[in-house]
Amino acid sequence: MGEQQEAKQSGGKGDTRVEPGMVRFELLHEDASGTKARRGRLHTPHGPVETPIFMPVGTVGSVKGVGPDDLLTLDAQIILGNTYHLMLRPGEALVGELGGLHRFVSWNRPMLTDSGGFQVFSLSGKRKITEEGAAFQSHLDGARHFLTPERSIDIQETLGADVIMAFDECPPSTEDRAYLEASLARTTRWLHRCVKAWSRERSSLFGIVQGGLHEDLRKRHAEEVCAVDLPGYALGGYSVGEAPEAMHDGVAYSAPLLPRDKPRYLMGVGTPVDLVTCVEHGVDMFDCVLPTRCARNGLLFTSEGKVVIRNAAYARDSRPVDPACTCYTCRNFSRAYLRHLFAAQELLAMRLNTIHNLHYFLGLMAEVRRAVAEDRFATFAREFRARAKAQEAERTRGR
Amino acid sequence: MGEQQEAKQSGGKGDTRVEPGMVRFELLHEDASGTKARRGRLHTPHGPVETPIFMPVGTVGSVKGVGPDDLLTLDAQIILGNTYHLMLRPGEALVGELGGLHRFVSWNRPMLTDSGGFQVFSLSGKRKITEEGAAFQSHLDGARHFLTPERSIDIQETLGADVIMAFDECPPSTEDRAYLEASLARTTRWLHRCVKAWSRERSSLFGIVQGGLHEDLRKRHAEEVCAVDLPGYALGGYSVGEAPEAMHDGVAYSAPLLPRDKPRYLMGVGTPVDLVTCVEHGVDMFDCVLPTRCARNGLLFTSEGKVVIRNAAYARDSRPVDPACTCYTCRNFSRAYLRHLFAAQELLAMRLNTIHNLHYFLGLMAEVRRAVAEDRFATFAREFRARAKAQEAERTRGR
Repeated sequence: MGEQQEAKQSGGKGDTRVEPGMVRFELLHEDASGTKARRGRLHTPHGPVETPIFMPVGTVGSVKGVGPDDLLTLDAQIILGNTYHLMLRPGEALVGELGGLHRFVSWNRPMLTDSGGFQVFSLSGKRKITEEGAAFQSHLDGARHFLTPERSIDIQETLGADVIMAFDECPPSTEDRAYLEASLARTTRWLHRCVKAWSRERSSLFGIVQGGLHEDLRKRHAEEVCAVDLPGYALGGYSVGEAPEAMHDGVAYSAPLLPRDKPRYLMGVGTPVDLVTCVEHGVDMFDCVLPTRCARNGLLFTSEGKVVIRNAAYARDSRPVDPACTCYTCRNFSRAYLRHLFAAQELLAMRLNTIHNLHYFLGLMAEVRRAVAEDRFATFAREFRARAKAQEAERTRGR
Repeated sequence: MGEQQEAKQSGGKGDTRVEPGMVRFELLHEDASGTKARRGRLHTPHGPVETPIFMPVGTVGSVKGVGPDDLLTLDAQIILGNTYHLMLRPGEALVGELGGLHRFVSWNRPMLTDSGGFQVFSLSGKRKITEEGAAFQSHLDGARHFLTPERSIDIQETLGADVIMAFDECPPSTEDRAYLEASLARTTRWLHRCVKAWSRERSSLFGIVQGGLHEDLRKRHAEEVCAVDLPGYALGGYSVGEAPEAMHDGVAYSAPLLPRDKPRYLMGVGTPVDLVTCVEHGVDMFDCVLPTRCARNGLLFTSEGKVVIRNAAYARDSRPVDPACTCYTCRNFSRAYLRHLFAAQELLAMRLNTIHNLHYFLGLMAEVRRAVAEDRFATFAREFRARAKAQEAERTRGR
């Protein structure tokens, strides 16, 4: 029986045009310029992902503003889907029936889904947590739902992403220590339930380390989570309101707690400076809505700093958003045109801005990978931060 | 001096990457199956347009929902821009400064601009017409503007489209005959002022015949307008509220009033049946917001009839919108996914729907051209209408 046929018979749920088996991380190189940055490759059933990588977020089955064709042109290697949003609409059963999330959204490269935990716990007033799981009301219609570790894994396996995430609690950093300790212990118990529910058929489960900004709690929880042999591990509970420096400090001591030979995923992060800084601390994977959301609000990231495209200063500006950029937007359109489209609320504004911002984030990560491979990441990161700081100061003065 | 250099020096205003000179219509073939349908080619400074043609509308400098890349993939041959919208925002001077409309919107194929007349006269309460021109208030900010034949031509020449339109009045069909006669006489005087203002440098002026649903007024006005030797002629004042049959009857006697050796443009029309029927009466060019507007409302045109994509019937439908269609949307996505995107109000829904509808309209015109070339247009048109009627009856029953 060929691999194709095996793959077809093994899954049952979802897309079947894949290589069978779990993801596997190949650590290609560790930076020798004094940082903890790593160059790696995550092998998945839908092909390889070169790390460090930024993953665009496709919340409800579409990376907002662009199509899969745009994402291929941008060479996005892996995208995210959100369990919480997809279970509510259109429902994971429907996606499974139609061949899984890859086929549903027409994306044949790797995908990752979160567990729904973060979104559920963000619904503060509308959810209740017990040992069994989390009861919550849909933000769409107020309907009651109950998400447990077992149900989250079942939903994610039905969606059929290459990487799926453990169902965890992400407690607010304002909670007291007693609550945090109880929450972490429960998240560990939930991890064991996730592992038990996990079929290992074609989606690879990553564990999530929580612990807020408490170094000792992070350490203890990392030990508990990493005691379970999994294909990858993530840091959750960062970039949830704390200052960037506090997050950077936290990642600095948390990332090295994760196994050296497994991919390290920092969830929900971040700005270009966050990405560069956390790669420096040993992180391999990132996701964030920042580039796509900012694009829709007219905030563009460039090699010369941020550009607020609605500004009157760009009304007659014939230059591209970023003269150094090679994206479709910058090769074809002026700042004046993008400003006009944004002012006129044309749909094309959203797409062109999103293409540009994703190109910037994905291009930055390609530069990061080169700098790590060439053992010059310490200098790269230092210069990048200095330039970003100077550009931001300039921009603020210019206001 | 080479042609390139001449082109650069002759224009002054707008895009210069063009062949110099006026548009020229080549009548390739007349249907021999008993209709007045014609197969032609409009040569323009930005390349040829095969007729009969449908022209997507790019009101404020973007065909809503898609980018120039999509339009090239769809092989759209010519697109429209709106003088009224562009004069208000971003203003024609800005577009001219930035190299003209072609360069501003990054479209290197032919373009046509309307004169602003139709939009101004649609602002019923907010405009006043005199012999000199039309005073109106902007729908954006209430600012007062005055549009005259001379100003409309100046704006259009600054935008620099390949085809520009005479400034006319499009009186409501409810006006009495005395008003209509006075209006037509004024539109003729305005045409002479347009011709006088026209530089003939690189934009070709088309005249517009009005006259509502009055055969004698149409005839008289066509004589007056066609007495002016112009590169093309249009029929205005159709599809402004009358029944489709009344419009078809009107076009049947009006289109043959226009010169045989010049392109005939029916403004603001129409549905697929309108296009086929009016080609039968001898029309060469059409524009309408129908395919793009319907796409944004989730109404899709297919070879099997109309599909209202939000319908619950499509929730689990894994088929493409139109199994016979080869567009990007139909090659990659299911009805279930398109319904989901539409329900979730994802931006991608607008783009995928628009790509599909434009593909349908442009593909229909390609079929029309083949049928005319092969002297089987009478049969084609009859069968097309019969099928459309049966499909619509089926759809209405299914509600």
